[in-house]
Amino acid sequence: MATRPMITDEEASDEVKAVFDDIRETRGNDLINNFWRYLAHDPIELKSVWEDLKRIMGPGNLDPLTKEMIYIAVSVANSCEYCAHSHTAAAKAKGMTTGQQNELLAVISMAARTNHLATALQVPIDEAFKV
Amino acid sequence: MATRPMITDEEASDEVKAVFDDIRETRGNDLINNFWRYLAHDPIELKSVWEDLKRIMGPGNLDPLTKEMIYIAVSVANSCEYCAHSHTAAAKAKGMTTGQQNELLAVISMAARTNHLATALQVPIDEAFKV
Amino acid sequence: MATRPMITDEEASDEVKAVFDDIRETRGNDLINNFWRYLAHDPIELKSVWEDLKRIMGPGNLDPLTKEMIYIAVSVANSCEYCAHSHTAAAKAKGMTTGQQNELLAVISMAARTNHLATALQVPIDEAFKV
Amino acid sequence: MATRPMITDEEASDEVKAVFDDIRETRGNDLINNFWRYLAHDPIELKSVWEDLKRIMGPGNLDPLTKEMIYIAVSVANSCEYCAHSHTAAAKAKGMTTGQQNELLAVISMAARTNHLATALQVPIDEAFKV
Amino acid sequence: MATRPMITDEEASDEVKAVFDDIRETRGNDLINNFWRYLAHDPIELKSVWEDLKRIMGPGNLDPLTKEMIYIAVSVANSCEYCAHSHTAAAKAKGMTTGQQNELLAVISMAARTNHLATALQVPIDEAFKV
Amino acid sequence: MATRPMITDEEASDEVKAVFDDIRETRGNDLINNFWRYLAHDPIELKSVWEDLKRIMGPGNLDPLTKEMIYIAVSVANSCEYCAHSHTAAAKAKGMTTGQQNELLAVISMAARTNHLATALQVPIDEAFKV
Repeated sequence: MATRPMITDEEASDEVKAVFDDIRETRGNDLINNFWRYLAHDPIELKSVWEDLKRIMGPGNLDPLTKEMIYIAVSVANSCEYCAHSHTAAAKAKGMTTGQQNELLAVISMAARTNHLATALQVPIDEAFKV
Repeated sequence: MATRPMITDEEASDEVKAVFDDIRETRGNDLINNFWRYLAHDPIELKSVWEDLKRIMGPGNLDPLTKEMIYIAVSVANSCEYCAHSHTAAAKAKGMTTGQQNELLAVISMAARTNHLATALQVPIDEAFKV
Repeated sequence: MATRPMITDEEASDEVKAVFDDIRETRGNDLINNFWRYLAHDPIELKSVWEDLKRIMGPGNLDPLTKEMIYIAVSVANSCEYCAHSHTAAAKAKGMTTGQQNELLAVISMAARTNHLATALQVPIDEAFKV
Repeated sequence: MATRPMITDEEASDEVKAVFDDIRETRGNDLINNFWRYLAHDPIELKSVWEDLKRIMGPGNLDPLTKEMIYIAVSVANSCEYCAHSHTAAAKAKGMTTGQQNELLAVISMAARTNHLATALQVPIDEAFKV
Repeated sequence: MATRPMITDEEASDEVKAVFDDIRETRGNDLINNFWRYLAHDPIELKSVWEDLKRIMGPGNLDPLTKEMIYIAVSVANSCEYCAHSHTAAAKAKGMTTGQQNELLAVISMAARTNHLATALQVPIDEAFKV
Repeated sequence: MATRPMITDEEASDEVKAVFDDIRETRGNDLINNFWRYLAHDPIELKSVWEDLKRIMGPGNLDPLTKEMIYIAVSVANSCEYCAHSHTAAAKAKGMTTGQQNELLAVISMAARTNHLATALQVPIDEAFKV
């Protein structure tokens, strides 16, 4: 029930195959999840999204699990069903425990609650917060 | 330019004062930021929000800085201006470096980008992600 | 700091004047608030929005104050600053008390909290809720 | 297709059972709808959400049906599918008529329409609305 | 799994039938898609939405395909699943090519990315942009 | 009132300067608008966002003005104030007329209206729309 068909391995152009190969190698996993197959009608965007994702989600000043939890938080607030599923699976694959998932959800729901209060009240920004 | 006036220390009822005192003591800081002053027309909600925030944002399975960054992520996706300011200030007070802030922003923007792609494509959820 | 200039009474075309006159008469108030002045570059849209608003927000199966509170709820969730201000002012003009405003805000923030939890958990819809 | 499994009555800890019992007693209904079963991995959050919901959604300055309609409005604007279903069912159980539902939907869609216009135009806030 | 039943041709009142007939005639197509059937419990809103849609989406200063792509963009950002499906189908019926769909999606995801960055950074508006 | 300071021309590193120079040359305009100055704390993200924007927003299957209007539509639905300003200015610079802006706004508000109705009704997707 997508808005266009997916690209199978057989249908993939050489450019698409190269990205699929890099996804498989980077993840050490043969699965190309649906997101990439439906995006693959546009090989340039496919390559751009994948390369940025690989660069941004790797280890750096923040560890990969922290990054996945931030990704989940944005996806939930943007109400992206596919992303809630795919990034929760990714976070679990990176070791997210039930205790961590519980706290992630508690923080997300706490933030949503105060976001709506602050917007309803149109709270002015404190002088102390101004850079 | 808020949608109702704030409550000053002088106007605070005993219930409100008790919450303000606990905020000051918990944070080791005399400032009661505007959010609490505008919420204080409803002492029950004020107390409930503050006590949940104190419980949820403290150390646990996730450290307080990670929680602040998740909070920022939700606040940005919900387009809450006050919250972007107040929680960025809070994250910096908890030690967020420029390098960490850069990666937080890169993850937020990456998530927004793929959230919109997955929603536009209505990507079906992979069997592998189903619990 | 709008994205285009407003239309003053002097600049208003006859079509725009007719809508402005009807706003003033319906509300028993001389003020044309900014929303209408910035929308007035498009007299057809101006008339359509105003006439639908007048029809929808009047008394019916729900009373006008209940309708204003529902309007505020949507405006807050959509993060519309102008609308939070204008419809809070309208609700107060229709008699919203501080106690009602407190409960409105508590319901809005409660809904936001469980909206985000249900989306994060991707809770399946109960058979009992299916029509 | 949730992001984690649900908790059945058999799997419920004593803390979870106590909340489930209170939900059943408060509602006079044996059904524990899915939201609570998926949230129950975190007994503290389960209890906190339930107790706040019970407190906030009961009769007060606003009647319970008005509160349910405000809840639906926020849930729709936040695009929460589960919440649209569960709170529409709750509103009907509290007596929402087709005529009321029609007006609720008309107000929600009217608000969405002007929210987007005001944001596109970046309409400045009228002096008259400033508190 | 809708929140209320649909209205079949047999159940349609005369007012609803008149709108259904106009939809069929305007589109040169016998299908009344589900949106209209679920909205038809409120004949006044049904007629108002349909007539505004017909007026707004027809040719004018922008061509109908450009309007459909703008409609998709809003629907995706508002996370409306039904609308992503129905308006992608409409855009294809109006001749949207794969190349155009690719660019539409690339622009949507690019905008989402910078929207979140600008909100996270709370970038002040440039003097040069002020009208 | 941003959440971090901007980078002036004097403070710009060589990597940042190279991006600023390319922005100026591509646009034939000396202005570096604030978005880039606040993003420039992260030279890698700055370069990635700019190069993707330059690639995506140029002429292709859709013309640059159509792309700007799609960009505005997403920015409005995501409630990004800065983006509403900057992309309306960009669209005007690319020749958007008042008549086109009026229709853009009418389509955005129409979409928001039906997005919220379809979500409230949880309209099932028509067989005819399934790919």
